[in-house]
Amino acid sequence: DFVNALHEITPAFGASTDDLERCRLRGIVDCGKAHKHIYQRAMLLVEQVKVSKGSPLVTCLLEGPAGSGKTAMAASVGIDSDFAYVKIISAETMIGFSESSKCAQICKVFEDAYKSQFSMIILDDIERLLEYVAIGPRFSNLISQTLLVLLKRVPPKGKNLLVVGTTSEVGFLESVGMCDVFSVTYHVPKLKKEDAKKVLHHLDVFDDGDLDAAAEALDDMPIKKLYTLVEMAAQGPTGGSAEAIYAGEKIDINHFFSILSDIIRY
Amino acid sequence: DFVNALHEITPAFGASTDDLERCRLRGIVDCGKAHKHIYQRAMLLVEQVKVSKGSPLVTCLLEGPAGSGKTAMAASVGIDSDFAYVKIISAETMIGFSESSKCAQICKVFEDAYKSQFSMIILDDIERLLEYVAIGPRFSNLISQTLLVLLKRVPPKGKNLLVVGTTSEVGFLESVGMCDVFSVTYHVPKLKKEDAKKVLHHLDVFDDGDLDAAAEALDDMPIKKLYTLVEMAAQGPTGGSAEAIYAGEKIDINHFFSILSDIIRY
Amino acid sequence: DFVNALHEITPAFGASTDDLERCRLRGIVDCGKAHKHIYQRAMLLVEQVKVSKGSPLVTCLLEGPAGSGKTAMAASVGIDSDFAYVKIISAETMIGFSESSKCAQICKVFEDAYKSQFSMIILDDIERLLEYVAIGPRFSNLISQTLLVLLKRVPPKGKNLLVVGTTSEVGFLESVGMCDVFSVTYHVPKLKKEDAKKVLHHLDVFDDGDLDAAAEALDDMPIKKLYTLVEMAAQGPTGGSAEAIYAGEKIDINHFFSILSDIIRY
Amino acid sequence: DFVNALHEITPAFGASTDDLERCRLRGIVDCGKAHKHIYQRAMLLVEQVKVSKGSPLVTCLLEGPAGSGKTAMAASVGIDSDFAYVKIISAETMIGFSESSKCAQICKVFEDAYKSQFSMIILDDIERLLEYVAIGPRFSNLISQTLLVLLKRVPPKGKNLLVVGTTSEVGFLESVGMCDVFSVTYHVPKLKKEDAKKVLHHLDVFDDGDLDAAAEALDDMPIKKLYTLVEMAAQGPTGGSAEAIYAGEKIDINHFFSILSDIIRY
Amino acid sequence: DFVNALHEITPAFGASTDDLERCRLRGIVDCGKAHKHIYQRAMLLVEQVKVSKGSPLVTCLLEGPAGSGKTAMAASVGIDSDFAYVKIISAETMIGFSESSKCAQICKVFEDAYKSQFSMIILDDIERLLEYVAIGPRFSNLISQTLLVLLKRVPPKGKNLLVVGTTSEVGFLESVGMCDVFSVTYHVPKLKKEDAKKVLHHLDVFDDGDLDAAAEALDDMPIKKLYTLVEMAAQGPTGGSAEAIYAGEKIDINHFFSILSDIIRY
Amino acid sequence: DFVNALHEITPAFGASTDDLERCRLRGIVDCGKAHKHIYQRAMLLVEQVKVSKGSPLVTCLLEGPAGSGKTAMAASVGIDSDFAYVKIISAETMIGFSESSKCAQICKVFEDAYKSQFSMIILDDIERLLEYVAIGPRFSNLISQTLLVLLKRVPPKGKNLLVVGTTSEVGFLESVGMCDVFSVTYHVPKLKKEDAKKVLHHLDVFDDGDLDAAAEALDDMPIKKLYTLVEMAAQGPTGGSAEAIYAGEKIDINHFFSILSDIIRY
Ligand SMILES: Nc1ncnc2c1ncn2[C@@H]1O[C@H](COP(=O)(O)OP(=O)(O)OP(=O)(O)O)[C@@H](O)[C@H]1O
Ligand SMILES: Nc1ncnc2c1ncn2[C@@H]1O[C@H](COP(=O)(O)OP(=O)(O)OP(=O)(O)O)[C@@H](O)[C@H]1O
Ligand SMILES: Nc1ncnc2c1ncn2[C@@H]1O[C@H](COP(=O)(O)OP(=O)(O)OP(=O)(O)O)[C@@H](O)[C@H]1O
Ligand SMILES: Nc1ncnc2c1ncn2[C@@H]1O[C@H](COP(=O)(O)OP(=O)(O)OP(=O)(O)O)[C@@H](O)[C@H]1O
Ligand SMILES: Nc1ncnc2c1ncn2[C@@H]1O[C@H](COP(=O)(O)OP(=O)(O)OP(=O)(O)O)[C@@H](O)[C@H]1O
Ligand SMILES: Nc1ncnc2c1ncn2[C@@H]1O[C@H](COP(=O)(O)OP(=O)(O)OP(=O)(O)O)[C@@H](O)[C@H]1O
Ligand SMILES: [Mg+2]
Ligand SMILES: [Mg+2]
Ligand SMILES: [Mg+2]
Ligand SMILES: [Mg+2]
Ligand SMILES: [Mg+2]
Ligand SMILES: [Mg+2]
Repeated sequence: DFVNALHEITPAFGASTDDLERCRLRGIVDCGKAHKHIYQRAMLLVEQVKVSKGSPLVTCLLEGPAGSGKTAMAASVGIDSDFAYVKIISAETMIGFSESSKCAQICKVFEDAYKSQFSMIILDDIERLLEYVAIGPRFSNLISQTLLVLLKRVPPKGKNLLVVGTTSEVGFLESVGMCDVFSVTYHVPKLKKEDAKKVLHHLDVFDDGDLDAAAEALDDMPIKKLYTLVEMAAQGPTGGSAEAIYAGEKIDINHFFSILSDIIRY
Repeated sequence: DFVNALHEITPAFGASTDDLERCRLRGIVDCGKAHKHIYQRAMLLVEQVKVSKGSPLVTCLLEGPAGSGKTAMAASVGIDSDFAYVKIISAETMIGFSESSKCAQICKVFEDAYKSQFSMIILDDIERLLEYVAIGPRFSNLISQTLLVLLKRVPPKGKNLLVVGTTSEVGFLESVGMCDVFSVTYHVPKLKKEDAKKVLHHLDVFDDGDLDAAAEALDDMPIKKLYTLVEMAAQGPTGGSAEAIYAGEKIDINHFFSILSDIIRY
Repeated sequence: DFVNALHEITPAFGASTDDLERCRLRGIVDCGKAHKHIYQRAMLLVEQVKVSKGSPLVTCLLEGPAGSGKTAMAASVGIDSDFAYVKIISAETMIGFSESSKCAQICKVFEDAYKSQFSMIILDDIERLLEYVAIGPRFSNLISQTLLVLLKRVPPKGKNLLVVGTTSEVGFLESVGMCDVFSVTYHVPKLKKEDAKKVLHHLDVFDDGDLDAAAEALDDMPIKKLYTLVEMAAQGPTGGSAEAIYAGEKIDINHFFSILSDIIRY
Repeated sequence: DFVNALHEITPAFGASTDDLERCRLRGIVDCGKAHKHIYQRAMLLVEQVKVSKGSPLVTCLLEGPAGSGKTAMAASVGIDSDFAYVKIISAETMIGFSESSKCAQICKVFEDAYKSQFSMIILDDIERLLEYVAIGPRFSNLISQTLLVLLKRVPPKGKNLLVVGTTSEVGFLESVGMCDVFSVTYHVPKLKKEDAKKVLHHLDVFDDGDLDAAAEALDDMPIKKLYTLVEMAAQGPTGGSAEAIYAGEKIDINHFFSILSDIIRY
Repeated sequence: DFVNALHEITPAFGASTDDLERCRLRGIVDCGKAHKHIYQRAMLLVEQVKVSKGSPLVTCLLEGPAGSGKTAMAASVGIDSDFAYVKIISAETMIGFSESSKCAQICKVFEDAYKSQFSMIILDDIERLLEYVAIGPRFSNLISQTLLVLLKRVPPKGKNLLVVGTTSEVGFLESVGMCDVFSVTYHVPKLKKEDAKKVLHHLDVFDDGDLDAAAEALDDMPIKKLYTLVEMAAQGPTGGSAEAIYAGEKIDINHFFSILSDIIRY
Repeated sequence: DFVNALHEITPAFGASTDDLERCRLRGIVDCGKAHKHIYQRAMLLVEQVKVSKGSPLVTCLLEGPAGSGKTAMAASVGIDSDFAYVKIISAETMIGFSESSKCAQICKVFEDAYKSQFSMIILDDIERLLEYVAIGPRFSNLISQTLLVLLKRVPPKGKNLLVVGTTSEVGFLESVGMCDVFSVTYHVPKLKKEDAKKVLHHLDVFDDGDLDAAAEALDDMPIKKLYTLVEMAAQGPTGGSAEAIYAGEKIDINHFFSILSDIIRY
């Protein structure tokens, strides 16, 4: 299955995967068909890069609502890619840097990638790399132009590169022409009722009798919100019950709904 | 009750609480159910941070009209949290600094927080930190991007962080995507008639016969305006009566209404 | 009455009042009930600052049309306040300075004020301090943010501060959120017919028979325009008559109306 | 009459009038009642400044269409004012300077003016001083704020100042609030038929029979365009006739109309 | 005729005409009445400058669609003017310079011109000098203000200056107020059928039988496009025929129409 | 035919063609009439430059949708031009440079080109050179003005230059006036069904029976997307089949349609 698939392939002569592992702190749990399909297609691109003759550059965009699991997916592909060079470019490590210094760092990663026969770069949260904000809208055109060029630039002879981008602002990326430069785009969705049930089942914090009601309430929710909710509910109405629940007790379904209403009020 | 609850828990190995105490100069008075409920839920998050395994970062936004008591609430949670590191980030201490220097100071606080096992950061008046003004609108995108990243960045292994933000411009925060990055948002409301009555009762500056009329007139008012009004009215129509009133005499209800009309004319 | 009231209270251990006196070069004349009421209420705030316990910071905005007497009023309150530190912050003394240097000067005044037990700061013509112009609109957000923070910042323990602002662009101040941070706002109006008559009577440059006609024509005029008009008319149609009029002769009412029509054509 | 009036008064202890004379290279010709009236009223202001007690600062704006004679008028008032200090501030002498350096130069002129008992400053073409352009619109807010403050700032004790501004963009000045700070505004109009006739008569380049037709065609034209037209027409259809016409011959009325149509086509 | 007229007058004591000649590489061909009329009127202005007393500055704008012959016309007037100083100011020689450095260069040319008794300056492609682009629109206000002032500034005593501007963006120039400062404006039009025929006749590359059809097809075309078209068509459908055609053979009318359709498709 | 045509002409004394060859990594395949026609017309311009007398500068714009083959076409013309100097100006080599440094590099290429008798410059992806982004829209006006001037500037005597531009944002170029400065513009279209069939036939990866269905599905697709699709489909549904297919096996038509639906979903 999906989870197994993810772990069947392990890096041969290993890129440092620490940064990548931090992107999936809760591990990888089977969360439905859609996620599985995208993972498989992305792994095909990994293979395509390896055998390619005509196209030394393959690019793929994972888009979807906030917290739907895009970064965890990209990191998993990176970990499982077996490439000598796998690097994540994220706004986290560039806080406070000037636009031009960010550009320089991004270019540096591409130049480094061009040194290995097979490389993969993750552009995580592209809207954040572009310093995007909806009001205006504002964003860094300098970084934007840099990415537009890098995503079209053919690597040197004999070098092959896979670029995977993630974004929760696909409309914005579309409007700056960034979607067009990706070879292919996949939509990473929120969880459906049955997907949520799979995850809850795995977590094992609800009575069997409550599982369906809980999953129903979580229909059309990003996986991240599901985890947040479960952890808040696990404290119990007056606090102090979390340890017990992680040790095997179950969450009170009424308290769970009370917390849920706090969260979805907005 | 709420006030008692606030004082049952006292800091164990004490973060400097001077700055926090300055945020609630008038102490904490019971001002109704809504405030109490939010305080309790916020204290659950404090606990969640302590027992958490999967989520080392918990974030919470307190939003509501100007003067509704958001900062006092956040400060109380900080004081009562028992955390080794509790810090308030406020525009007050950064007047005249450049955007990038403000960013650096904000990052510094987060880096410091990452050094304690359990930390809490209050982002007070986020719209002011962002130098927001409705005309334009204008704001600092540099600071905005910094916060967006910091509010998603996972602390280092073994460190746990609670971030509480306050704002009276939730619409603006929504439009820059800042609301989405908070795990949960609570609305700190104006006072209802019955809440105002509780506070007035506590202040004890009205004749019992006037109390209801006064509370009625204060329906749907932020707690801050209530205090302002009472203090202005206490001077009396020709001045000089404040000492007497603080010593036990009562405010002339007619003068109170006259002052009220000055204030609500706008 | 109003004028007497203004002079009953004189500074005890005197702030330098030179700058303040320059704000009311024509002295203070009784110009009607509205002005009187506002003056009295402002003097109550002076007293409130002196006896306050809970609110070490009191802020008040005087708004109204150009030339309605706001600055003269604020200066009078300052002169009559009996406070050790009274300072006017005005664009006049900061011509040509950069935004950040203006901010620094403004902060300096507040820091100085925090050193006295009782202080008063006049923020004169706030729209000018903010370099406001209606086209755009444009203004200094740096100064704007500085004022927004200073107007909320609690003075150090034991220090008390009254801030009085003036503006003829209350709509603009509203839209940058500057009105909300003032505790109370008063509207300083144009003169009504009967107010104008009081001032003209005091000036004594019209025949008694002409006084009513002149006052009627001046209905709904700011006090500043009234003075301008009278001085222009005093020159007479062919010049040379001003000395005589200041010595006791009267203004020709027809020439007065001719000058009036020059002025109100726009 | 108007022309005589202009020359009856000559400077007593003379400000350098070279710059001012360059503003009326074609001398001053009687061009109708409106111009005469404004000149007289402006001379009253000159007198008012001399006898004033209450108002040491008098300001006056001359506005009207391009080329209507505003600068020549202001220069004439300056020449005829008999003031020790008369200075014209014009964009001509500040080409290529930065905004802040322009501000400094403007302030310098005001500071210099404050040194004489009676001074006059001409702010010529205020829209050009403000670097105004209709697209946007754009203009220098720095210079704009500087003028707004200088036009309200009271000169030091015992010093008196008359400021005369000119502009052909009164709508723009209105919208930046610059009109309101002038005590009085006069509209310098285009020429009416009868005004044009007076000027043409003075120039004496048309046959008496053609004079009325020519004047009729020039109805509602700024005096500047009238001069341009006459000079172009004086060359004759094939060139070479100008000397003769300045020596007494007359302009061919048909050629005059042909040139006129070139000009008014736009 | 027009062409003869252009060559009857030759420079007496010669300004360097190299730059000017480069503006009319294809020589000057009779291209119809409109062009001829404008040339003649412009030469009258040259004369006016020489005999002028009252108006030492004469300014003229040539506007019209792209490629209509404006620059060639202005250059011809300059070459034929007989002035000691004739200079073309063009964006070509200022590529990559900053706005302020461009301003300095422009001012320098005016200062140099003021040194000769009779000078002429061509401001070529004013929209390009202003760095105009329709989107926004954007342009250099610094250069714009500089030109607005220079076009009104009276030269020093005894010096006389003719300024001829060209533009294909007269609407833009209008909107920045640049048209108003020119004394007179002429519209340099596209070619009419009969004008085109004159030029084709002169070029002699069509069979007499084809001339009318070709001219008809070229109705309402700028002279520049006419030359482009003829030169493209001269290559023949498969290339190689140009030499022959320049040596006397004729262009295949069908190929000519085929090329024409390529060009007017856009 | 087209392909043969492309290879009949080879450089005589060779410009470095490495950069140009990188623009057509997949070689040149016959992809229909439209492409062929444009190639031939462009080669006529090459010839025109060689024989030209009157027009030492010829400019041509290739516009069309993303991936339609514009750059490959321009590179082919450059390779086949037989010119001593052929240079491609592309954003790729200027990542991270400032606007003014980009301008300098562009100017340098033009200056270098002016040194050879016959030169060709390719301005590749003009919108990228201009740092264009649709939001705003934003772009570099500095570079824009530089190109507008360079595209009109006549080379020095005896030097001849062909400039070929490419763009997929012809609307934007139109709106900045960049289209007008090109002598002629050609539209490089997407593939029609029959064009796609030609390319697929050449690639030989489909069973003859599937060829029509595949071509039909590829109607109205840019050639670049066609290659991307074929390469993705060649991996097979579970990966691993690419080698075999490049060695002669055929692509499974169902898998091909599955991949196609991934791509056109957006
Ligand atoms: N398949 C999975 N199994 C278990 N946990 C998952 C899975 N996918 C995502 N998560 C967890 O859900 C949370 C959100 O995932 P992730 O950060 O990848 O989402 P995202 O779409 O990148 O969010 P954002 O839009 O905020 O960047 C993370 O804590 C991640 O570890
Ligand atoms: N529960 C309470 N008991 C007593 N006083 C309170 C309470 N809550 C708030 N106050 C007082 O009311 C005033 C306003 O509270 P606070 O500053 O917390 O409001 P706020 O919502 O943060 O306002 P702002 O929107 O201006 O930031 C303060 O003086 C505070 O001390
Ligand atoms: N009560 C008064 N008695 C006599 N003169 C007064 C009085 N009030 C104002 N004035 C005079 O009227 C003029 C305008 O007053 P002031 O400058 O205070 O008005 P303002 O509202 O501040 O105007 P602005 O909107 O331009 O700042 C001043 O010359 C002032 O001295
Ligand atoms: N009364 C007059 N007699 C003779 N010539 C005059 C008179 N008034 C103006 N002129 C001439 O008319 C021309 C235009 O006048 P002036 O420059 O004063 O107009 P303006 O309104 O300032 O124009 P602009 O709007 O361009 O600044 C000048 O040459 C000036 O000398
Ligand atoms: N009368 C003429 N006889 C021959 N050639 C001419 C004539 N007028 C213009 N040309 C030629 O036509 C071309 C376009 O002319 P020119 O550059 O003057 O036009 P323009 O209106 O300035 O164009 P643009 O709007 O592009 O600046 C030039 O090659 C020029 O030499
Ligand atoms: N005639 C052709 N034969 C074979 N391959 C071609 C042909 N034309 C284009 N290609 C290939 O198609 C792909 C896209 O072509 P190219 O880069 O020239 O398109 P473009 O229109 O410049 O795209 P963009 O709009 O992205 O700049 C390239 O890989 C190129 O090698
Ligand atoms: Mg993510
Ligand atoms: Mg607060
Ligand atoms: Mg004032
Ligand atoms: Mg003028
Ligand atoms: Mg031209
Ligand atoms: Mg391309």
